[in-house]
This record gives sequence, structure tokens and C-alpha cells, in this order.
Amino acid sequence: MDADLCFAPAAALGERVRRRDVSPVEIVTALLDRIDRYNGMLCSYITVCADAAVAAARAAEREISAGRWRGPLHGLPISHKDIVFTRGVRTTCHSRTMLDLVPDADATVVRRLADAGMILLGKTNTTEFAVGTMDVFGTSRTPWDPAYYSGGSSGGAGSSLAAGLAVAATGSDTGGSIRIPGALCGIVGLKPTYGRVSRHGVFPLSYSMDHVGPMCRTVADCALLLGALAGRDPLDPTSSSCPVPDYAAALAGGVRGLRLGVPRQHFYEHLDPGVDHAVRAALRHLESLGAVPEPLDLPRASDVGVIGWALLAAEAFAAHAALLRKRSADYGARARQRIAGGAFLTAAEYQQAAQIRGLWMREVDAALQRVDAIVTPTTAFGGISVEAQNSTPPDTTRNTIPFNLTGHPALTLPCGFTDAGLPVGLQLVGRAFDEEMLFRIGAAYERSTEWHTRRPALEVRA
Amino acid sequence: MDADLCFAPAAALGERVRRRDVSPVEIVTALLDRIDRYNGMLCSYITVCADAAVAAARAAEREISAGRWRGPLHGLPISHKDIVFTRGVRTTCHSRTMLDLVPDADATVVRRLADAGMILLGKTNTTEFAVGTMDVFGTSRTPWDPAYYSGGSSGGAGSSLAAGLAVAATGSDTGGSIRIPGALCGIVGLKPTYGRVSRHGVFPLSYSMDHVGPMCRTVADCALLLGALAGRDPLDPTSSSCPVPDYAAALAGGVRGLRLGVPRQHFYEHLDPGVDHAVRAALRHLESLGAVPEPLDLPRASDVGVIGWALLAAEAFAAHAALLRKRSADYGARARQRIAGGAFLTAAEYQQAAQIRGLWMREVDAALQRVDAIVTPTTAFGGISVEAQNSTPPDTTRNTIPFNLTGHPALTLPCGFTDAGLPVGLQLVGRAFDEEMLFRIGAAYERSTEWHTRRPALEVRA
Repeated sequence: MDADLCFAPAAALGERVRRRDVSPVEIVTALLDRIDRYNGMLCSYITVCADAAVAAARAAEREISAGRWRGPLHGLPISHKDIVFTRGVRTTCHSRTMLDLVPDADATVVRRLADAGMILLGKTNTTEFAVGTMDVFGTSRTPWDPAYYSGGSSGGAGSSLAAGLAVAATGSDTGGSIRIPGALCGIVGLKPTYGRVSRHGVFPLSYSMDHVGPMCRTVADCALLLGALAGRDPLDPTSSSCPVPDYAAALAGGVRGLRLGVPRQHFYEHLDPGVDHAVRAALRHLESLGAVPEPLDLPRASDVGVIGWALLAAEAFAAHAALLRKRSADYGARARQRIAGGAFLTAAEYQQAAQIRGLWMREVDAALQRVDAIVTPTTAFGGISVEAQNSTPPDTTRNTIPFNLTGHPALTLPCGFTDAGLPVGLQLVGRAFDEEMLFRIGAAYERSTEWHTRRPALEVRA
Repeated sequence: MDADLCFAPAAALGERVRRRDVSPVEIVTALLDRIDRYNGMLCSYITVCADAAVAAARAAEREISAGRWRGPLHGLPISHKDIVFTRGVRTTCHSRTMLDLVPDADATVVRRLADAGMILLGKTNTTEFAVGTMDVFGTSRTPWDPAYYSGGSSGGAGSSLAAGLAVAATGSDTGGSIRIPGALCGIVGLKPTYGRVSRHGVFPLSYSMDHVGPMCRTVADCALLLGALAGRDPLDPTSSSCPVPDYAAALAGGVRGLRLGVPRQHFYEHLDPGVDHAVRAALRHLESLGAVPEPLDLPRASDVGVIGWALLAAEAFAAHAALLRKRSADYGARARQRIAGGAFLTAAEYQQAAQIRGLWMREVDAALQRVDAIVTPTTAFGGISVEAQNSTPPDTTRNTIPFNLTGHPALTLPCGFTDAGLPVGLQLVGRAFDEEMLFRIGAAYERSTEWHTRRPALEVRA
């Protein structure tokens, strides 16, 4: 019963809260209970705001009882990635340099969700500065097999959602950091269009590739969260004033007649058999619903990964230079190496990389004139052991970072499991500021499949 | 009579050619005659294609007589800046490294105008690689006072048009190189939107800020040329497939009710009195025609000049690195210093400059939501002596380079003279791909003023 509460979609819970069929206190208590039981094993949370969350749940309960219901997110718990600044709550970036940092202001996304009535449940695990390893608080794991990495960098969010330790979460995505843990944990994650969601108060990694977005267990929940997160923020000059549509209205559209681009190059190459099998089955399923797959040429796709990492390193070095000079020894080896590597790039090299990035943007934009969305596997492999992640991880970003370079919106949703029982993610990429199309396709797929309803057998392992 | 032929607008000449009221041979001959007389003093041309131009004029005459008239540019001479590659015709970039270079292919703009029936008259003077000085072929001069510099880098084009040594020309503009000589020579020049005109075959200076565009004596002529120049070119991946409108149709619109933004910051500061006087009179004149001036805040304007020069240096170094390594001693001091300076910039610095550039783009885009065009002086000063140009020139690009950073279209047209008799330029800046608005405002101004009809008194000086 409590587990049902912990695995219910946010939309359903919100409706029950509105009807006063369940109290925010019950939801928060049930989640805290599960966090107590499983967080030690999964390392999903760095900080849990147990007392404050219960107090806030009581306040929400009173507010709603008094007839002041704020909307569908009111009284629901939210967790934020630990690079998202939360007023009065420690924000570590999983870095030894920031273990005692307690921000005196909220990130815009924190404030927006609080205004919508959400309750801060905790701060989720992240790789160091969203680019290194997880040395201080442990490596977050996928609940489908805790010997396997959750994926990163927003690994705590993915892990907590898959394990029923969270209802909804924020993540950030510079090279795939929402979509990769989304895929490896079997949940839904959206990297919105660049500029769609404010980044104010989120510790920067790469100015031109950082995105903040929602992570949930269903497509509808992501749509609900994005509605609250999206919109112009005067504190973030890169945020767009493009109007925010009613995302919920997009969910029912169906896929009949939609053209789905299936890239000929790169994205379907070197796939683990389990990933290949699941993604091709998903494509056939979408076709059976009336969508029209179309082969797509994206010849530059395999060249842009290194471009992405070069730009990321240069921009990360720009953001970290001062701290790195003072506290270099307090950086973990992987974060230091990836960030400091940016110091060796020249302006001319950066600009030549930016040129290729521009050509790639045009290539994807042109492709999206011919199709309604591009469909790819989110990752090429079906799982990374925690051991591999902490020594020599595979290239996790090869299918995701291309769309950090372009800024197009990209959604991952679960589309099956490998033979080893690890989840597989399907990536949908859409036109700039057309998150509605991704929700529409994702919801149609989700309605007619049951991957998102499966639960990991944590009880057996605990 | 011949001088009248040399100063007639291209549109009028084209119409006379169509009616066979004048022959292309007469036009070419008259121009070659004037070039013979004045090019020694003005240094407008680096290469004159006398024999080939006469032969081509004869061919055009035959073609038209045979009823195969190609359109309004058929039989008219065109000159190209000497960084624009012309098949079989020496292209020097005014560089000691390229004095013998004879390209085996045309730039796309050369081919397009040749297809429209235009006749290659010659290659016009440019500063070394469009960024240095004019050491080899002499410094081009404004015919209004040959002790004064024509402005650069497309100085030969500006000088030749003002002196009646050309009918129409191409220029390139990375920091103001079409607009500055346009202003200092009293002619009309357009830097089109980034992506509007192909750059294939034009020696690059700055990938993200180079623009190619027309230089003429009237707004209508610029519209005519742009119609032939604009459009997608598969050989230039940065060229846009945005449809090319009928620019001539935009000329008659008038300015009644149009909102003209007058920046509060930067653009009207530290002006020479003669420039200030002429530009304010032009604004009053536009108001008398029904336009509505509106004060505009552009607070970042004065910060972006250095950003532009930093990005230009980095990108120029990227383009020149190989040649500079081999032939450094053959670069002039100014070109070498400006280009090699880019080698010292890091990727992190480039990216931080690019960040500010992004904010500036948004600032200008937001301003252009509120007004139909922005109006500024093209340059802050009323003239540079040749001596000053070759020793310590003033900051010529302060009002122009801001729009190389943003890519917005910008037109300069003559709006008066200083007390010393040197021309003053008015700059109109419009929304991306809305060159029509600039032509509309420019044509309305031009129809009701007579600055563009004045001729310099070269005969007296020669």
C-alpha cells in the first residue's frame, strides 16, 4: 500500500491530494520510510530533508484543507539534483570543495516548484560537478541491479525514481546527464530546448550546453513538471521568452501519420544486442500505432561527440578556473582531468569546433524539417557495472551529446529490458521549443506499453 | 556626357541597355577612360580588366541585340573586392603572399552576377586580408578629398563608386568594411543578414562575422544587386535557405508610422560635430516623412567592440595559422599584429566573449521587437587623413562591429557633409532577413534628399 503510494505517478497523486483522498504527509512519510530502507544501498540521496519535508507536508495539508489548493503539484514531494542551489539546505555538487555550502537563495527552478506547492524532499546524488565521479557520498546505483551504475550525472534522481524513493525530480544535462540515468534506471527524463528552463542558481558546467529539466516515471508527469519549470527568467539571460504552451493538452494527440526519423549513421551503430532489440521493437510498435519511420541521413553525427567534449572542457574550465586554482587538490581525478583539460584549448581551436557545431545544428534542423521527431537509442549499451564506472567507463554520451550541441529538446523513456534485466531507453528528439511533439509521441507509446509500470525487486535484494 | 554615364544609377543604366539606348561597350569604355584618368590618384582598383571587359561588353551587346536580354543587370559592369576569387583574374587580397595568385574558380557571388549578365570590370582595393593596411598598391582615397582615406577594408569599392569609376561593386564586412568606406565615400552599402549571401570563394577573415554584400550609389541599386546575390549556396554551409523576396517591391513603401529606434547609449556619443549635425538632421527629416523616432536602451553597446575584436582575432588566426607560419615576414605589420594576436586567446576566453556576444544578440533582437529599425551614425568621425590611417587610425568600427556580432542587416547611406566637405553616413539596422525594411526606409530618405546625386570635383584636383 505504501509502496503503491511511492510508485504512483505524480499526476495521479496530485489528483488524490486535491480530492483529499491522500495527505501530503502520508506521501512524504511513505517515501522517507523507503529512503531509510534503500538509500544506503542505492546512494540516491546526498541529503534528505526529513523533518522539514514532514513539516512542509503538514502545512500543505492545512492549506489544501482550507481550500487554498494551488494546482496539480501542490503537496507533492520534489527532489533536486545536488548542483541545484536550495536556500538553507546544503548543496554540495558532490565536491569536497563545497561540503559545507548552504546557499542563501534558491535556484529559479526550486522557487518555481515551491510556488507550485511542491515539498523539498532532498538533494539527489550527482557526479562531482556533474562531470567527475561519486567519491564522497558513494556511487548511485540502478535499483534493477545495484551492482550496476545508475548512469550520470543526475544518477541520484534516476535511481530514486526507479526505486520509489521520489515522485519527481530535477536533473541537469550537459552531455546526456538527464537522459543517460533516465535510460539506465528505466524512467522518463527530458532535456528541454536550450533556453526553455532557467539555469539561474544551478552550478554551471558548460554555458552553451547545460540544460535543466524534469525526471519522472511517466511522460505525463514530465509534461506536468515542465509546465511549472518553463518560461522566461530575468535572472537567466539565456532563458527564452517563447510562450509556454499547455503541455498536458499535447499528450492525447497520438502518432498516426507522424514521420519519425531513423538515422542511418552513428546512432544505431555498435549497439548492445539487448538495446538493439528493444529499440527496434519500439520502432515497430510506433509504426503499428500509425507512425511512419523514415530513414534519415545525418552524416556529421559521428564527428560531433569530440567537438562536444572539447567545447564542454573549455567552458567548464572557464567556469572553474578560479576554484581550480585555489582547491585543485580537492577535485577528484576525473573531474580535475576533464575540466583542467579545457585550459589547453586555444580560442582558434574552440572556434573551429564551434564551426563544426554550427554545421551540425543546420544538419539536424534540416532533418527536422522532413520529420516530426528523430528516434534513437538513448545509450548504446545496456548497463555499466559500478566497477567499470569507477575505472574505465564506456562512452555513455555518444547518442546524447549531439543534441546538447544543437539545443534541441530530447526525451528518454523506457522501451524494454536487456536479457540481464536492465532497462533500455528510447530517445526522441524534436524541433526547438516543440517539447509538445515529444510528449505526444512518448505518451502514445507509454499508453500502449507497460514498461513504465514495472518495479524493481528491491525487497529481495535488501 | 560620358561622366553622366559613369555616375548614372545601375537601375537606370540597365533600363537604357535593355532599350538599347546605350550599349554596354559605351558604359565600359567611359568607365575605363575615367579609371585611366583617376585611378592613379585614388588607388581604387588593384587590377583593371580593360580588354576582357570590352570584349564581354561586345558579347553582351550582341546577346541583347539578338533578343536574349537576361535582366536588369545585363551588360552592366561590376567590380569585386580583391579578396573575392575570380577565375583567371589575379586575386591578391592586397597581400605580398598572394601577388601571383590566379584562381581557377569563381566565388559564388562572382558567378551569380556573371549569370545575371554583369561584366567584370576589375578588382578593387582592400586593406591587406581585409584587416591590415594598403602597403603594396597604395592607400585608396575618398574622391571628396584625396588627402583623406576612403575607409576600409572595401575602400577601393567605395572610392570607385564615389568617383564614377564603377557602377556597382561587391564588398565584404567583418567589422564595418562595407559600411565604413560607404560612409566615408558618400555611397550606399549593405551588410546583409549573416547567411543571406554566400561567402564561398571569398578569402575568410572571421567565420562568424564575415558578410559579403553590395555597394552602389543608390538604395535601389543595392536592392537590385542583393536580389541577384542572395540565396542558398550548397558550397557555403552557413548560407541560409530563407526565401529571397522581391527587394525592388520594398522600395516604394515609405516610412509613415515606422518606428525608428535611436539608441540612448554609445552610438551617438563622441561624435564629430559635423557627423552629429548631419545625422540629427536626417532623423528630423525622416520624422517629417512620418517616421516615429523612439529612444532605445542598448546598455551593452559600448562593451561589445572589444568582444568583436577578440573574436575576430581568434577566428582570423584560425584561418591564417598555416600561412602565417610559412610567410610571416610577408605580412604587413598591422595585419600580422591583428591576426597573430588571436593566437594568445584561450578557448575559455573565446567562450566568455561568445557569452557576452549572445547577451548582446538578445538585447538587439529585443530592441527590434519594439522598433522597425535602429538608426545610428555609421562612423563617429567625419574623415581620416591618409596619414592617420597609415599611422594611428581612430576606432572606425565602434558603430558597425556591434552588428557583425549579431548578424543583423545594416545599410549605410549618405546623409550630408561635414564643414570640410567630407560625406557622412547614416546607418539603418533591421531584423534578421528583413533587408526589405532597410531598403524601404533608405529609399524614402533618398527620394526626398539629394546627397546621393552630388559628385566630387575630381577634375579640379587632377
